[in-house]
Amino acid sequence: MSERHMKLGAFLMAGGHHIAAWRHPDAHAPAGSDIDHFIAVARIAERGKFDMIFIEDAAAIRERNPDLASQAARSTAFEPLSLLAAIAVNTSHVGLVATASTSYTEPYGLARSFAALDQLSGGRAGWNLVTSASELEAENFASSGLRPHSQRYERAEEFADAALALWDGVEDGTYFPAGGETFADHSKLHPVHWHGKHFAVDGILESQRSPQGRPIMVQAGASDVGKDLAARTADVVFAASQTKAEAQAYYADVKLRLGKYGRGQDDLKVMPGISPIVGATEEEAKAKYRALQEFIPDAVGVALLASYLSVQDLSAYPLDGPLPEMPQTNLIQSRQQLIVDLGKREGLSIRELARHFAGARGHWQVVGTPSQVADAMEERFLDGAADGFNVMAPLFPSGLEDFVTLVVPELQRRGVFRKEYEGRTLRRNLGVASPSKG
Amino acid sequence: MSERHMKLGAFLMAGGHHIAAWRHPDAHAPAGSDIDHFIAVARIAERGKFDMIFIEDAAAIRERNPDLASQAARSTAFEPLSLLAAIAVNTSHVGLVATASTSYTEPYGLARSFAALDQLSGGRAGWNLVTSASELEAENFASSGLRPHSQRYERAEEFADAALALWDGVEDGTYFPAGGETFADHSKLHPVHWHGKHFAVDGILESQRSPQGRPIMVQAGASDVGKDLAARTADVVFAASQTKAEAQAYYADVKLRLGKYGRGQDDLKVMPGISPIVGATEEEAKAKYRALQEFIPDAVGVALLASYLSVQDLSAYPLDGPLPEMPQTNLIQSRQQLIVDLGKREGLSIRELARHFAGARGHWQVVGTPSQVADAMEERFLDGAADGFNVMAPLFPSGLEDFVTLVVPELQRRGVFRKEYEGRTLRRNLGVASPSKG
Ligand SMILES: Cc1cc2nc3c(=O)[nH]c(=O)nc-3n(C[C@H](O)[C@H](O)[C@H](O)COP(=O)(O)O)c2cc1C
Ligand SMILES: Cc1cc2nc3c(=O)[nH]c(=O)nc-3n(C[C@H](O)[C@H](O)[C@H](O)COP(=O)(O)O)c2cc1C
Repeated sequence: MSERHMKLGAFLMAGGHHIAAWRHPDAHAPAGSDIDHFIAVARIAERGKFDMIFIEDAAAIRERNPDLASQAARSTAFEPLSLLAAIAVNTSHVGLVATASTSYTEPYGLARSFAALDQLSGGRAGWNLVTSASELEAENFASSGLRPHSQRYERAEEFADAALALWDGVEDGTYFPAGGETFADHSKLHPVHWHGKHFAVDGILESQRSPQGRPIMVQAGASDVGKDLAARTADVVFAASQTKAEAQAYYADVKLRLGKYGRGQDDLKVMPGISPIVGATEEEAKAKYRALQEFIPDAVGVALLASYLSVQDLSAYPLDGPLPEMPQTNLIQSRQQLIVDLGKREGLSIRELARHFAGARGHWQVVGTPSQVADAMEERFLDGAADGFNVMAPLFPSGLEDFVTLVVPELQRRGVFRKEYEGRTLRRNLGVASPSKG
Repeated sequence: MSERHMKLGAFLMAGGHHIAAWRHPDAHAPAGSDIDHFIAVARIAERGKFDMIFIEDAAAIRERNPDLASQAARSTAFEPLSLLAAIAVNTSHVGLVATASTSYTEPYGLARSFAALDQLSGGRAGWNLVTSASELEAENFASSGLRPHSQRYERAEEFADAALALWDGVEDGTYFPAGGETFADHSKLHPVHWHGKHFAVDGILESQRSPQGRPIMVQAGASDVGKDLAARTADVVFAASQTKAEAQAYYADVKLRLGKYGRGQDDLKVMPGISPIVGATEEEAKAKYRALQEFIPDAVGVALLASYLSVQDLSAYPLDGPLPEMPQTNLIQSRQQLIVDLGKREGLSIRELARHFAGARGHWQVVGTPSQVADAMEERFLDGAADGFNVMAPLFPSGLEDFVTLVVPELQRRGVFRKEYEGRTLRRNLGVASPSKG
């Protein structure tokens, strides 16, 4: 009945989203530095008609503590824009979303790199804008330490505006105008004069106009200021919501903010994460899940939980008791809250929470048959909790392969997911409005 | 007789190095934004056993003056690191050198992007370090305007040192140690604590060690401080020398500086530019040259000359008279000097200089048969003027194709150029020493 289709993103991670993926016999351990592995995984997503693949990022090693090194094993050795440029020329339809921070670069350089990816891919680039909450990143770039949350977002607002202005400053058909004596039609270039508190840009982007108008903007902010920035500038928001009620609340909250900025309800797609573990039967799915969980050492799980909570250490507390009361910090407020809430709601011990979060890292996890997974997705999709999902396969390539082979056809059969790409650009496939000029 | 082989770089430019390349019927006009064109050209270079391809850069449009737009037609719409990532996965042996400035980014981010390109390509990345002398770039990044030459180099020195420290901070075999219970052997990670006047970095590069030890460092400085930086940190220097005597003087000068830094004569390869126009016969070569020169409008040539000289305008002076006396500026001192010297030495008029520079842009131009071109190269190679050449084909792909088909076999026959790649990494092919650790 529904003509509305869900959007799907494939959140790539070297060996898999599961913390112990790299220890699993099916995983390709050095995946993070193997470009052929990433290209193969991207092609699986494209075969599954995914709107996009998504590469997370932090410009730092992921973990200072050697005991937690497993955490880092999931990440890639490739800076995301370089990685996606290499994938772009080996794919044809799937969108390519790279994470990049507004805290340690300048808008001109980043706008230009995304424009390049957009040209290379024929209009499939997207930018996941983050403000970088990690101390480890701050140390790589500044002696002054991590900026407070509010300053990071002030900078992000300016950064986004400057980048948007640069992309919009070049009209379609500027270069090699038909029958032209000159190489560029300068009347179609609109110099940007953008002066803010953090940045000044007086120039024209060295690029043609994007084949999709401009790159897609993605955001995953969970704070008020983060959700406002998304409502004003983003085409897609990712979220980490455990329960359906949480997801609905987040969805309603973000959609409500669109009005303030004169945007329509369909202009921003809300795509919460889902961590699916799929088996032909329920037994098989559960066995797959158990096989993964077995590889998590308790020490790793608990240390990881502490790092999610932004506390130094949890080893003073009994493993089988509840979480202690937590101080609020300005770091990743939302994830912290999510963990505390889940612990209270389901009465979980530190060990249980650790296992749970070590596995799916706070994202919604569904273990089941293709139709059980499709049911769960369809329900949230139809009940105002999601416009689509950011699929976090526990293992690569096998977890994504399972999803594409088993769940995608089920979603297609139900008429809630595309059978063919609508077009060649990410914007066209997402069905979000194009910026005016060009 | 000589066992010493010359090194060859292919300096790519969208449609060609010749200013009017894009107007030529053989040129593919929108080459600058066509990734397939660049991949095809890179493969021609690889077929010719070139050590590397080279991508120049400026993070800005190339020309404010619409009358000079032709100048910009040579440049690419792709930021170089993205472009080379896409080329990396479509080539197997040729080195990949991207230009990047030290003036508008931070060492951690750039070191990481080059590390990614190095991993993607299996050890074929190189960084052409520039300080960005262009006002147009400065305007895109700072309201404060262009920094003076000395400050740019002070920053470049720090930038290079921090990047080298980051690359050297990760040993070989750090990740997935054999039989290891943890993903990383932390004893092989050496945190960098680099604090200078311009940058502070306290961290570890998020990358494996480069397959070639670290990326190749390229420089094209012509000032004293530029040559010193190259002698201290570079593996390759590019140069723009017109006459053999100039080339010899530059060569001797740079090589002499190596001693100061405890480096050997072979540790730095000097590769001046050559702009070859090759024909099966001398007549054919000359006809090719004339066909290109015919496409240069006088107005474009003269305005371009003015911009090379960093003067506003030359239109007050008679086209057929000599250059007026020039004020020294702190901008690109060397190129300015080169033009003034050539004008005096050969008694050229403004029009003649304009044509000349518009064509080869101050680089050494050789028009002739394969054996004439090989003679000219061999002479400079054997007479202490060059360790190799940075080949600037007037047109792409045909100009490079000519060189690879006609000149390369001639150089191979004479025993001055390789018949097969020595290895898979750029460092191995260049034959320059590896850094110690790892
Ligand atoms: C699916 C998802 C992916 C994210 N990816 C990144 C990332 O790659 N890099 C990063 O620094 N932050 C990432 N974040 C964190 C968010 O950008 C954001 O900082 C966080 O949700 C807290 O929200 P706030 O910044 O509004 O406080 C991600 C969050 C989610 C939900
Ligand atoms: C072959 C060659 C390529 C160059 N490529 C670039 C480039 O891509 N971007 C840039 O800003 N400067 C480039 N330059 C300029 C040099 O980096 C350098 O700034 C210039 O030669 C003046 O020397 P100096 O900086 O020591 O004064 C190039 C120079 C040469 C000879």
